[in-house]
Amino acid sequence: MLLGMRDDEETGRITLAQVAERAGVSISTVSKVLNGRQDVAAPTRMKVEHLLEAYAYRRTTRSAGEAPLIEIVFHELESIWAMELIRGVENIAKVHDAGVVLTESGTRHAPGPDWTEAMLQRRPLGVILVLSTLPDEVKQQLRARSIPFVIVDPAGDPDPDVPSVGSANWNGGLAATRHLIESGHQRIGIVTGPEDMLCSLARLDGFRSAMSMGGLEVDPELVMFGDFHVEGGYERAAEMLALPQRPTAIFAGSDLQALGVLEAARVQGLRVPHDLSVVGYDDVSIARWASPALTTVHQPLRQMAEEATQMLMRLRAQEPVATRLELATSMVVRNSTAPPPPV
Amino acid sequence: MLLGMRDDEETGRITLAQVAERAGVSISTVSKVLNGRQDVAAPTRMKVEHLLEAYAYRRTTRSAGEAPLIEIVFHELESIWAMELIRGVENIAKVHDAGVVLTESGTRHAPGPDWTEAMLQRRPLGVILVLSTLPDEVKQQLRARSIPFVIVDPAGDPDPDVPSVGSANWNGGLAATRHLIESGHQRIGIVTGPEDMLCSLARLDGFRSAMSMGGLEVDPELVMFGDFHVEGGYERAAEMLALPQRPTAIFAGSDLQALGVLEAARVQGLRVPHDLSVVGYDDVSIARWASPALTTVHQPLRQMAEEATQMLMRLRAQEPVATRLELATSMVVRNSTAPPPPV
Repeated sequence: MLLGMRDDEETGRITLAQVAERAGVSISTVSKVLNGRQDVAAPTRMKVEHLLEAYAYRRTTRSAGEAPLIEIVFHELESIWAMELIRGVENIAKVHDAGVVLTESGTRHAPGPDWTEAMLQRRPLGVILVLSTLPDEVKQQLRARSIPFVIVDPAGDPDPDVPSVGSANWNGGLAATRHLIESGHQRIGIVTGPEDMLCSLARLDGFRSAMSMGGLEVDPELVMFGDFHVEGGYERAAEMLALPQRPTAIFAGSDLQALGVLEAARVQGLRVPHDLSVVGYDDVSIARWASPALTTVHQPLRQMAEEATQMLMRLRAQEPVATRLELATSMVVRNSTAPPPPV
Repeated sequence: MLLGMRDDEETGRITLAQVAERAGVSISTVSKVLNGRQDVAAPTRMKVEHLLEAYAYRRTTRSAGEAPLIEIVFHELESIWAMELIRGVENIAKVHDAGVVLTESGTRHAPGPDWTEAMLQRRPLGVILVLSTLPDEVKQQLRARSIPFVIVDPAGDPDPDVPSVGSANWNGGLAATRHLIESGHQRIGIVTGPEDMLCSLARLDGFRSAMSMGGLEVDPELVMFGDFHVEGGYERAAEMLALPQRPTAIFAGSDLQALGVLEAARVQGLRVPHDLSVVGYDDVSIARWASPALTTVHQPLRQMAEEATQMLMRLRAQEPVATRLELATSMVVRNSTAPPPPV
């Protein structure tokens, strides 16, 4: 096919006409809805989308000779997770000769209507969302067009309605705390993430269980919520280290927070790990580069993105997929942990 | 236009036929070459490409109703530069409603034939390459198809034949060294990047000029080449700090190398900045997060990518662009530098 018809859409044409007839609109209106155009009244758009979904209308994604695309959407690229996740998607996209289109939604919970419109026009093989939740409207728009989507959710707050890939946060919190207990620590603090994120709570519960199993009490003064950023780790650790009886170890809840803990220790003249042991979470590259290199909990981010992209391809092939997949975390012991200083 | 012809290519049809006639091949062969297909003999492909270029054949990039794409190619996404550059490209792409397709070439100097084929099929608005040089073959393939391309080259080794955006490395090296001299340091070491990269040499020359202008001698023992990674910074600094007369300050050539210098200082029991001042280069986010936060030379990576993408759009519009654009660097003074310890 050189310059001719887009013959891949012909099979869809009959269905399109039927949808138009049933919705009582023109074929051109149905086409506008399919292409995500904004100039269709909301009630009409919703009616057409419901019909498309009800009749399981399948438009093949791109015409022959066009290279396939996979979309990946982040709420913020600044995230230190972003690179590993992109590489995971790239690894699987390569196998399918697909290009990877990257979008930063800019808000925590949802890509905006501009993205939706442009994405629908790009007609991707599927969409990987690095977001905790997806608005019902966007779900509906994707489903109506048979565009599969999977959420990669290191934050661990899965939408039960959407296939998602995460990792085992409770087990990670447990392992980090056990490592400190096995090194001889008894007075252990935790700076977990924000109070409204499930992964923070799961890591904290893992911490509590490890303490309890080790026969150790959790001092409420040593349990703090951070922001998953350097600043939060710094501020909470500064408070904890100023206590009359300071902890000998801090489980920092994320690698960024662990960097903040290192800085708080430095400012107070404490040496890590001699005076204070620190455990991070995530095992992004900065963990390796910190001084001292961080002991941390490895989240298999690249593998999570690979699994999500493979789920996408199975959804396209209408094969069954798990609704929620959690990959295991593992301890990586480096130089920021040691036995506690002698009393 | 709902499901019909791809009318945007009709203007190109006559030229395609002419090219086929002149090359003595079928139109379908010309089309295969345009689409980057591998099943055309190399001599035929080159003949067709030369004719396409000679006749300034312009194929409009994508058909109406398809969302436009901009490609960005990295040799390695691991690079701490990657995120800032992607965000710069995204900022300008958004203005043009274009999606951003991301590729990791995996080799230092060139994207492979797989990428070339897939990219030609995607028919992007243009290509941003984060690479020092581009093989003549790829240049030829892009030019033959009138796909504009711009190199973003923080390494500062511009190909005079291709529009590129970089930053002022010599000035950056000068400013970093002046900052140390103004703080009172006289015995200053440098770990610059690899010996075969122009940006390493430019930063070293800036260092030498600042020393000379400050009336200070450069001790050859204190001039070392690294690898721009943490390991290189660590190893060189470990050597330098083991000298009988060690430096009181090290200009580390990159933020990653500066992290290695911090670790070497920690291992030898030296406190930064009390015993040793350290200056990085790049000002990526890890510079802010280091303990202590790094004094460094800010490279405006996001702005460089924005400029490059704007150049791409001007090239598309056949407007004149500068062949080489160098943006200014600036000093960012944080906590890793201080006056030298009293003798």
